[in-house]
Amino acid sequence: MTGTIFVLNGPNLNLLGKRQPGIYGSETLADVEVATARQAESHGMSTRFLQSNAEHQLIDWIHEARDQAAGIVINPAAYTHTSVAILDALNAFDGPVIEVHISNVHKREEFRHHSFVSLRADGVIAGCGTQGYLLAIDRLAKLLADAN
Amino acid sequence: MTGTIFVLNGPNLNLLGKRQPGIYGSETLADVEVATARQAESHGMSTRFLQSNAEHQLIDWIHEARDQAAGIVINPAAYTHTSVAILDALNAFDGPVIEVHISNVHKREEFRHHSFVSLRADGVIAGCGTQGYLLAIDRLAKLLADAN
Amino acid sequence: MTGTIFVLNGPNLNLLGKRQPGIYGSETLADVEVATARQAESHGMSTRFLQSNAEHQLIDWIHEARDQAAGIVINPAAYTHTSVAILDALNAFDGPVIEVHISNVHKREEFRHHSFVSLRADGVIAGCGTQGYLLAIDRLAKLLADAN
Amino acid sequence: MTGTIFVLNGPNLNLLGKRQPGIYGSETLADVEVATARQAESHGMSTRFLQSNAEHQLIDWIHEARDQAAGIVINPAAYTHTSVAILDALNAFDGPVIEVHISNVHKREEFRHHSFVSLRADGVIAGCGTQGYLLAIDRLAKLLADAN
Amino acid sequence: MTGTIFVLNGPNLNLLGKRQPGIYGSETLADVEVATARQAESHGMSTRFLQSNAEHQLIDWIHEARDQAAGIVINPAAYTHTSVAILDALNAFDGPVIEVHISNVHKREEFRHHSFVSLRADGVIAGCGTQGYLLAIDRLAKLLADAN
Amino acid sequence: MTGTIFVLNGPNLNLLGKRQPGIYGSETLADVEVATARQAESHGMSTRFLQSNAEHQLIDWIHEARDQAAGIVINPAAYTHTSVAILDALNAFDGPVIEVHISNVHKREEFRHHSFVSLRADGVIAGCGTQGYLLAIDRLAKLLADAN
Amino acid sequence: MTGTIFVLNGPNLNLLGKRQPGIYGSETLADVEVATARQAESHGMSTRFLQSNAEHQLIDWIHEARDQAAGIVINPAAYTHTSVAILDALNAFDGPVIEVHISNVHKREEFRHHSFVSLRADGVIAGCGTQGYLLAIDRLAKLLADAN
Amino acid sequence: MTGTIFVLNGPNLNLLGKRQPGIYGSETLADVEVATARQAESHGMSTRFLQSNAEHQLIDWIHEARDQAAGIVINPAAYTHTSVAILDALNAFDGPVIEVHISNVHKREEFRHHSFVSLRADGVIAGCGTQGYLLAIDRLAKLLADAN
Amino acid sequence: MTGTIFVLNGPNLNLLGKRQPGIYGSETLADVEVATARQAESHGMSTRFLQSNAEHQLIDWIHEARDQAAGIVINPAAYTHTSVAILDALNAFDGPVIEVHISNVHKREEFRHHSFVSLRADGVIAGCGTQGYLLAIDRLAKLLADAN
Amino acid sequence: MTGTIFVLNGPNLNLLGKRQPGIYGSETLADVEVATARQAESHGMSTRFLQSNAEHQLIDWIHEARDQAAGIVINPAAYTHTSVAILDALNAFDGPVIEVHISNVHKREEFRHHSFVSLRADGVIAGCGTQGYLLAIDRLAKLLADAN
Amino acid sequence: MTGTIFVLNGPNLNLLGKRQPGIYGSETLADVEVATARQAESHGMSTRFLQSNAEHQLIDWIHEARDQAAGIVINPAAYTHTSVAILDALNAFDGPVIEVHISNVHKREEFRHHSFVSLRADGVIAGCGTQGYLLAIDRLAKLLADAN
Amino acid sequence: MTGTIFVLNGPNLNLLGKRQPGIYGSETLADVEVATARQAESHGMSTRFLQSNAEHQLIDWIHEARDQAAGIVINPAAYTHTSVAILDALNAFDGPVIEVHISNVHKREEFRHHSFVSLRADGVIAGCGTQGYLLAIDRLAKLLADAN
Repeated sequence: MTGTIFVLNGPNLNLLGKRQPGIYGSETLADVEVATARQAESHGMSTRFLQSNAEHQLIDWIHEARDQAAGIVINPAAYTHTSVAILDALNAFDGPVIEVHISNVHKREEFRHHSFVSLRADGVIAGCGTQGYLLAIDRLAKLLADAN
Repeated sequence: MTGTIFVLNGPNLNLLGKRQPGIYGSETLADVEVATARQAESHGMSTRFLQSNAEHQLIDWIHEARDQAAGIVINPAAYTHTSVAILDALNAFDGPVIEVHISNVHKREEFRHHSFVSLRADGVIAGCGTQGYLLAIDRLAKLLADAN
Repeated sequence: MTGTIFVLNGPNLNLLGKRQPGIYGSETLADVEVATARQAESHGMSTRFLQSNAEHQLIDWIHEARDQAAGIVINPAAYTHTSVAILDALNAFDGPVIEVHISNVHKREEFRHHSFVSLRADGVIAGCGTQGYLLAIDRLAKLLADAN
Repeated sequence: MTGTIFVLNGPNLNLLGKRQPGIYGSETLADVEVATARQAESHGMSTRFLQSNAEHQLIDWIHEARDQAAGIVINPAAYTHTSVAILDALNAFDGPVIEVHISNVHKREEFRHHSFVSLRADGVIAGCGTQGYLLAIDRLAKLLADAN
Repeated sequence: MTGTIFVLNGPNLNLLGKRQPGIYGSETLADVEVATARQAESHGMSTRFLQSNAEHQLIDWIHEARDQAAGIVINPAAYTHTSVAILDALNAFDGPVIEVHISNVHKREEFRHHSFVSLRADGVIAGCGTQGYLLAIDRLAKLLADAN
Repeated sequence: MTGTIFVLNGPNLNLLGKRQPGIYGSETLADVEVATARQAESHGMSTRFLQSNAEHQLIDWIHEARDQAAGIVINPAAYTHTSVAILDALNAFDGPVIEVHISNVHKREEFRHHSFVSLRADGVIAGCGTQGYLLAIDRLAKLLADAN
Repeated sequence: MTGTIFVLNGPNLNLLGKRQPGIYGSETLADVEVATARQAESHGMSTRFLQSNAEHQLIDWIHEARDQAAGIVINPAAYTHTSVAILDALNAFDGPVIEVHISNVHKREEFRHHSFVSLRADGVIAGCGTQGYLLAIDRLAKLLADAN
Repeated sequence: MTGTIFVLNGPNLNLLGKRQPGIYGSETLADVEVATARQAESHGMSTRFLQSNAEHQLIDWIHEARDQAAGIVINPAAYTHTSVAILDALNAFDGPVIEVHISNVHKREEFRHHSFVSLRADGVIAGCGTQGYLLAIDRLAKLLADAN
Repeated sequence: MTGTIFVLNGPNLNLLGKRQPGIYGSETLADVEVATARQAESHGMSTRFLQSNAEHQLIDWIHEARDQAAGIVINPAAYTHTSVAILDALNAFDGPVIEVHISNVHKREEFRHHSFVSLRADGVIAGCGTQGYLLAIDRLAKLLADAN
Repeated sequence: MTGTIFVLNGPNLNLLGKRQPGIYGSETLADVEVATARQAESHGMSTRFLQSNAEHQLIDWIHEARDQAAGIVINPAAYTHTSVAILDALNAFDGPVIEVHISNVHKREEFRHHSFVSLRADGVIAGCGTQGYLLAIDRLAKLLADAN
Repeated sequence: MTGTIFVLNGPNLNLLGKRQPGIYGSETLADVEVATARQAESHGMSTRFLQSNAEHQLIDWIHEARDQAAGIVINPAAYTHTSVAILDALNAFDGPVIEVHISNVHKREEFRHHSFVSLRADGVIAGCGTQGYLLAIDRLAKLLADAN
Repeated sequence: MTGTIFVLNGPNLNLLGKRQPGIYGSETLADVEVATARQAESHGMSTRFLQSNAEHQLIDWIHEARDQAAGIVINPAAYTHTSVAILDALNAFDGPVIEVHISNVHKREEFRHHSFVSLRADGVIAGCGTQGYLLAIDRLAKLLADAN
C-alpha cells in the first residue's frame, strides 16, 4: 500500500513537550513527527506532518490534501470545538479522516465535549496520548488497504 | 509484558455481523474475539472476552476485573449513554480503561453523543470499526508497559 | 395470514390488576394474555406473551424474535423512557413493531413524554387501556397481510 | 350501543391520497370517511366526518360536539403542535377523545413530538396509517359501552 | 412495634469498604447489615438486608416487599439517577420508604443531583455516611409507630 | 462528648404547627426546640435554637457559630433555594453542618429541588418531619465524636 | 370623556358560564357584555363587544379599531400564548390596550405563563374573574382621560 | 362590608415619584397611600399601608395579616422575582391576595417575567400605574363581599 | 418562459404603507402588487397576488397553487414563526418556493428568528424591503427557466 | 449611480464548483466574480471581489471598505456562525451590507441556523444559489440610489 | 476634585482576612477601609466605607447615596448573583458605579458567573484582590473629573 | 521592579478612536499605547504593545511571552467570546494575566457575557474605558512585586 498521509496539528501543539511535562510528557511535536513517519513507513506510506496556530492555514492544507493525500490525521486542538470552517474543509475532502486528541477531552471542561470535526471524521481517538497518532495511522492504513 | 485484559461488550453486540452487514461488515463478535486475543498475545498478554445484554453482568465482570485484570477494554454499546452504574463500577477499578465504539457515535443521534463511561475511561476510540478493539489493546499494552 | 406475534411486557407489569385497581382496573396480565391470544387467533396468528422486569431479558426476547416472530407488540413500561439498549435491539428486528402504553403517558410526568422505543416503532398506541394490546394486534395483522 | 362520533380532521388532510402516494398510500379522505362510518356502524354508532384547514372551524365543531357527540376522534394534523385553542375546546367536551396521527410523529422533526391535544385526549394512536381511525372507533365504542 | 424492614442496596455497594477507604471508610456492607439489624431490633423490628447490581432484582425485591415488608430503606446508588422502573416499583408499594445515600450527592457531578426515587420516597437522607441507614431505620420506626 | 450545636431555622418556620396542621402536624417550633435540646443532651451536648425570617440574621448567627458552635443544624426553609449569602457564610464555618427539611422538597415545585446550602452541607435530611432535627443531632454527635 | 372601547374575546369564551360553573361561575359572556357596557357608560364611553374563535377575525377587528376605537380591552384566551399575528395587529394600533385573563394564568400549565400580547399591552389584569373586564374599562377610562 | 386590607410595598418603592418622573409620574408613595385608603373607604374598608426594603419585614407583616387583615394587596417590587420566602409567607395567609406592579413587567428584562408571588396570588394587575392599587382594592372588595 | 406565480401575503400585511411609514415606507401592498406583476411580466410570467389574515386561507391558496402555479413567493408574516400548517401545505407543493420578509427578522425579537417556512422554502430573502418581492420573482424566473 | 461594492467570500468558497457539482453546480467562484461584476456594471457600479479562508483577512478587507466601498456583499460561509469579530468589523462600516448564502442554511444542521452577521446585515439572501450575489447587487444598487 | 465615594460591602465581607488566609490573604476589611480612604484622599475625595450582611441595609445606603455620594464602589458579594432589589436601587442612583469582586468570579461555580449588578455598573473589576477597591477609586476619580 | 509586560489587543481595536467617537471617545490605540507605556514605566517596567485581527498572531505572541514577558494584559475583543485557542495559549503562560474590556460587556448582547479568557485570567477589568489598561498595569505591577 502506498500514499501520503497528511498529519495536521492545530493551535498550541507547537508547545508540546515544552509545558506541563507532568501532564503531557516530555515528547515534543518533532518526536511525534518522527514516530508517525516511522509508523506510516511500516505500512508503506509516507506522511506530511504540519502544525499551525492559524485556522486558515489548516484549511489551506486540507484543500491541498484533496490532490495530494490519501488520508488525513488531524488533531484540531482548540479548533475542534469552535471551527465550522475546518469541518467544511474536511467535508470537501474525499478520503478517510481520523481525528486525534492527546488527552481525553470528555473529562475536561464542558465546552471541550463537543467536536465539529467529529461530524465528519471517520474515526475519533482521544486520550491515548501521542500514541493516538500511531493508532490513527494504523487505522488509515487499514481503511486505505480495504478500499483498494 | 504479561497480564490479562478484560474485553467487555455491551448489549446487542452478540448480533455483530448478523445484521446490517452493509454497515457493520460480516465480521462476528467471535471473529473480533479471535483477532483481539491474537493482538494481545503479540504484546505478551492474554484476554478474557465477554459479552452480555445485562447491565449487572457487565458490572459484575468489572468487579472481577479488580482482582484479575491488568486493564479493561469496554464497548458499552447502548449502556454508554445511560449507565451511571457501569461508570461507578469502572471508578472502582484501578487499572487503565479504554472505551471502544465500532461506529462514530458523534455522527449519530444526539443522545449518543454523551458517554458516562468517557468520564472514567483513559482513552476513547470511536468509528474505527472492529479494528478499534485492536488499537485499544495496543494502547493498553503501552500503558501497562510504561507503568512497569 | 399466519405467524407468531411476540407480545413483550416491561417492568412492573406483572403487578397489573393487583395495584391501584381504581386506575388500572382489575384485569391482570394473565387476562391480557388470554385476550391478546384470542384477538391474534381471530386473524389466524398466534402469540408468545412474555413479561420481565429485566432489561436484558427483553433484549434477549427481541433477539429471538428475529427468527421466530412476524411482528412485535411491546409495552416497554418504564424502559420506554430510559433504554437505548431496547431501541437498538428493536433496530435489529426487521418486522413491524407496535408500541403500547396502557395509560396516556403524555398526561403524566414530563420524563414520561419521551420514548426511545418510538424512534423505531411503526405505530404507537397510548391511553387505550389494555384494549391497546388488541388494537396493536389488529394493526400488526393488517401490516403483515399487506406485506404479503 | 348508539350515538354519534365526531371524526375531526385538521389542516391539509383534504389532500390525503393526492400527494406523496408512496408515503401516504392512495387512500383519500373520502375513503377514510367510508371506512370509518362502516366501523362505527359495526358498533351500532354513526359518525359525522369533517375536515377543515381552519383552526376556528375545528373549535366550532368541538363546541357542537358538546350537544351532539358521544365521543370525538380527532386528527389535528399540524394544529397538534401549535393549538392551545383546540386543547381548550376539547377541555370543554365531556366525552371520550381519541387522538389519531396517520404517521408516527415521534420519528419526524423534533417540533412534531409535542402535542397539546395529548394533554386532554384519553387515548393517542400514531403511526397506524388510516387504520388508526378504525382503531380509534373501536376504542371509543368500548369506552362508551363501559360507561353505560 | 413489630415488622420487617427491607433494606435494599443498589449497584456497586457490594464493594463498600473495599475501595477508596479514605473516602468511604473501612466499614463493609456486612458491617452495615449488622448495625442496621441491631438498630431495627432496638425498635422491635427485624430487617431483610439485600444488595444487587441488577435493576430487575431490586424491582423484584420491592415487589416482594408488598407482602412482606412494613417499610423500605433503599440506597439505589447509581440507579437513583436513571431508573424509572424502580420508581414505578416503589409506587406500587404502600408502606413508608426512606432513600439513603452515603455521600452527599448534591456535592458531586450534576447528573447525581436528580433522583427518580425521591419522587416517591417519604424521606431522603444523604451524606450521613453509613449512619444514614440507622437514621432511616429510626425514621421508619417512628412512621410505623405513628401509623398504628 | 461536649459542645454546643446551633440549630438555625429560616423564614416562616415561626408559624410551624400554626398553619396547615393536616400537613405539618400540630407540633410547634417550641416543641421542636425542646425535643432537639433533649436529643442533644442525650449525647452530652447543648443547643442554641434560633429562628429568623431575615437572611442577614441567619448569616450573623452562622458567623457567631464560628466561635461558639461545634456544629450546625440548619433548616434554611425558603432561603435554601435562593441564598448564596448563607452558603458563603457556611463556607466560613469549619465544623460539620447538617441541612434539614421537614417536607420532602423533591416532591414539590421544581424550584424547590435545588439547594445552595447542599453545596456545603455535610449531610442532608429531608422529608423526615420534625424528627429530621433529631436525626441531624444524632449525626452531628457521631461526626463530632469521630473527630475527637 | 367620550369614545368607543373595543372589547375583544378570543377562542372558547363563547362557552363562558356554560361549562365548569364551579370554576368559572354561571356568568355568561352576554352577562359580561352588559356589565362592561354599563361600566363604560359610567365613564361616558361606549363599547363594541365581540367574540370569535378565529384568529383572523380578531386581527380584522383590531384593524377596524384603528379607525373606530379609543382603546382596546382584549382577552385573547388561548391565542395569548401562540399568536404573533395578534401581537403584530396590536402593534399597529395606536391607542391604549389592556389585556385581561379571567383566571390567574400564572398558576396554570407552564405554556400559559408566556403571553405574546403582553409584549404590547399597556396593562395586564389576570385572575380577577370577569370583574377584570370592568377594571380594564376603569383603567382605559383613566388613560384616555389623562391623554386628553 | 368591613375589614382591613394590608397594602404591602417592597424594596425601592419608597422612592416612588422621586426618580424618573417622566416614567413613573410625580405621584409619591404617600399619594398612593391616600388614594388607596380613600378607595377602600368607599367600600367600607380600611387599609394598613406599609413599605419596606427588607424581605423579612414584608414576611413579618404578612404573618401579622393572618390575624389582622381581610385581604392583602402586595407590590413585591424586585422581590417578586427572587423571594420564595414571601411566597411561603403568603401561602400561610388564608384571605385573598392581589399582586400589583406599577409597570408592565412583561415588557422589561427577561428576569422580570417570572413571579414567585403569582403562584399564590388570586389576581395579578400589572402596568396600570398607581391606579393598579385602586383596581386591586376594588377586586378585594368584591371577593370579600362575595365571600360573605 | 411562461407561468403563473402565486404571491401570498400573511397577516397584517394589508396595513402595509398605512402604519409606521418612517419604518416601512409609504408603499402600500397595492403598490407591491403592481411592481411584482411588472417584474414577473418582464420574465414572461404572470402573478396572482393575494393577502389574508387567515391561516386557513393561505393554506387553501397553497393547495390551489398545486394546480395553478409554477412557483410561490410567500411572505408569511407572523405565521412564519408559528404555523406548522402552512409548512405542511407547502410540503405538498412541488414547485419552487421563495420566502420573503420585508424587514430583517434576525435583528428583531428572539421569537422572530425561527421560521417554520424556511424548512421548506428553496430561498429566503429578508430585510430587502419590498424590493425583496422583486428579487424573489427574479429567483423564481431563473429556477423555472433552469428547470425547463 | 457610481461606487465600488466589496464582494467578500469566506472560507472554502475557493472550492466552489470544484466539489459536489451535483449540489453546488459547476459554476466556479471566478464565474461568480464575472457575473457579479457585470451585474454591478449594469447599475453603474464596480466590484472588488475577494475570497479568503482567513477570518482576519476578511476583517482587514471590511476595514478597507470603510474608505473604499459604497456597500458590502458578504458570504461569510462558516464564519457566519462563529465570528463575532467579523460582526464587530461590519459594525464599524457605515454603508449597507447584504449577507448571502448559496444554500438555504435553515435546512441544514442546527448550528448553521444562527448568524452573527445577520445582527448587522441590512438584508439576508439565502438559498438562491449563486444568483444570490446578483440579487444582493440589485439590492445594494437600490439602497445606494435611494440614499442619494 | 472633591466629593464623597460610598464604598459598600455585601454579606460575609466582615470576615475578610479572618478566614481562609491562604486564599484571601490576611488583610481585613478594616485594612481595606484605610487603604481605600487613602486612595480617595490622593484624588481629593473622601469615602464612606460600609458593610452589611443585610440586603435592605445596602439598599438603604444606596438610597442615601442619592443625596450624599458622588459615586459608588460596591462589592455586593453573594447578593451580586441574587439581588434584583440592589440592581433597582442602583438604577435610581445617577452617579457612576464601579462593581468590585476580590476573586475572579468567572473561575468559580457557574451560579457566580451572572451578576445583576453588572447590568447597571459602569465598570466591573474582578480578581484583582483587595487592590480592586483602589483601582475602582482611581476609575471613579477619573469619571468624576471628566464629568466636571 | 523590572520586566516587560505584553499588552495584546484583539480584532478591530486598530479602529479605536476612529469610529463611533461618541461612544469610544477620540483616543486611538496609539494613544493607549503611549499611556500604557508611561504607566508601566512608573512601576519600573516596560511594555510591548501589539494589536492583530488574527487569532493565530495573538497566539504566537502569547507563546513569545513565555520567554519574554513578566505578565500579560490582554483585550481579546471579539475573540473573548469565541477563542478556545487563545485560552489554551494563555494556559501555557506561567505569569499573571489581566483581561481588559473597554466597554462593560455585561450590558451588551447575551453572547458577550461569556469569556473563555476569564477562565484563565487572574483579573478582569471591564467598562473602565481605556483607563482599564492602566489599572491592569497597576495590578500586574503589584502582583509581580508581591511575587518577588
